[in-house]
Amino acid sequence: MDNKHEGSVPLILVCNDDGIEAPGILALASGLEGLGEIVVVAPLLEQSAVGHSITIRDPVRARSCPFRTPSGDIMAFRVTGTPADCVKLAIDKLLPRPPSIVVSGINQGPNAAVNVIYSGTVSAATEATILGIPAVAVSYCRWSGGSFDASARTARQIVRHVLEKGLPHGILLNVNVPDLPSDKLKGIAVTRQARSKWEESFCERVDPFDQTYYWLTGTFINMDSGENTDLEAIENGFVSVTPIQHDMTAHSFVAALRKWEWAKNGK
Amino acid sequence: MDNKHEGSVPLILVCNDDGIEAPGILALASGLEGLGEIVVVAPLLEQSAVGHSITIRDPVRARSCPFRTPSGDIMAFRVTGTPADCVKLAIDKLLPRPPSIVVSGINQGPNAAVNVIYSGTVSAATEATILGIPAVAVSYCRWSGGSFDASARTARQIVRHVLEKGLPHGILLNVNVPDLPSDKLKGIAVTRQARSKWEESFCERVDPFDQTYYWLTGTFINMDSGENTDLEAIENGFVSVTPIQHDMTAHSFVAALRKWEWAKNGK
Repeated sequence: MDNKHEGSVPLILVCNDDGIEAPGILALASGLEGLGEIVVVAPLLEQSAVGHSITIRDPVRARSCPFRTPSGDIMAFRVTGTPADCVKLAIDKLLPRPPSIVVSGINQGPNAAVNVIYSGTVSAATEATILGIPAVAVSYCRWSGGSFDASARTARQIVRHVLEKGLPHGILLNVNVPDLPSDKLKGIAVTRQARSKWEESFCERVDPFDQTYYWLTGTFINMDSGENTDLEAIENGFVSVTPIQHDMTAHSFVAALRKWEWAKNGK
Repeated sequence: MDNKHEGSVPLILVCNDDGIEAPGILALASGLEGLGEIVVVAPLLEQSAVGHSITIRDPVRARSCPFRTPSGDIMAFRVTGTPADCVKLAIDKLLPRPPSIVVSGINQGPNAAVNVIYSGTVSAATEATILGIPAVAVSYCRWSGGSFDASARTARQIVRHVLEKGLPHGILLNVNVPDLPSDKLKGIAVTRQARSKWEESFCERVDPFDQTYYWLTGTFINMDSGENTDLEAIENGFVSVTPIQHDMTAHSFVAALRKWEWAKNGK
């Protein structure tokens, strides 16, 4: 691959969507120590489910802030924006040199199946691949609490591989680690996103001023009984590694669509 | 296809990301009249570049509002949320029955190449395909002003086709109409997203309190000299129709990634 790391100490940009004070990003930065020079650039506030949102109508601000791992202080900035903003701003303004890799996470909760498209964690990695930089997104499949240890060890292993080998242009690795201790993980499974959806059920309420408002709630539906899905791997105790691309063209449908008989000029 | 429209009058959900008062959504709803029953559910405020963002930490509100086309008043709701929120809420709470199609736009400005992933216009259509409903996103390739006439006529033509034929599950059509009068359009080209990126150049300023802030600006770079791209079609006066899927798995890289030698347990 043309983007594998060569030469001096790699610069590793660490980002997330849970915000710079989340325990997952501390576990990630700590787990990567020794693989290169680490800089953390992450949102000031939680940015879950922002998808690939970027800030274009408002200014963003970045401020240097303390970030202490067990081995000492590392360079860090908190940004008033989205995960994709963080990556853009880091690369254009904050980092001393271009990063060799961008690593996003560790997210509290899985980012698998259809949820990849809603994920701020994945969007930071996606932004990196748009800019030609290899990237890894890491999520811990537990919605609160637990230990990030196994996820951090897995992240270290995968990041080391990517630094050595690079990735094809425009592709990132989306990693989901089951909620198991390191020695109970069954290994790494290369997967595809499961076909799935949310069945919405907005909770309807009335405010003190007699106005209706809605909270988004829903039930996740796995519609995929095929092989090699991310959901299946996680359920069976494997670390799921899905290659993800930002080109969303449905190449499989191009030929069939060309056969449609289009009338000319909007008739 | 299993989602083509059959039976009684189709319900057409119209959404956008420029907000319910934007001229493009009025042109779109007006242009589709006669093809079915039209309901407009759109953001109260502009939501450009929100990508596939959804609102999960705050409530959303919807209010019935006037929406007048040349033929008369149609049902409309404005929503305090993102384009994807609008589609979810419309289908779960606001529409009298499930829609046969979701049409998003007409966006003021193109949504082609890498910009598809940042686009709120496309995200409304993407959300529909996640929910199993065929969808079309329409953008007019001019950043301000001009006439939406040719785009509206094109939208009508394509929506009629999709109602008749359906689309494969999980696929939408992303339509970009060049800034030309209807009779100068050269026809419809089925395309793929051009490989491209933005070269960021954040504008750095200092506020009245001596704090630095940044505005995102950049230069768009087309890195694709291959055939059948959306950018090429638009430039040559064709309506670009790109099939877009929400499955982001890079299937082409799965086999190669399986050959990586993964050490077990994070060693």
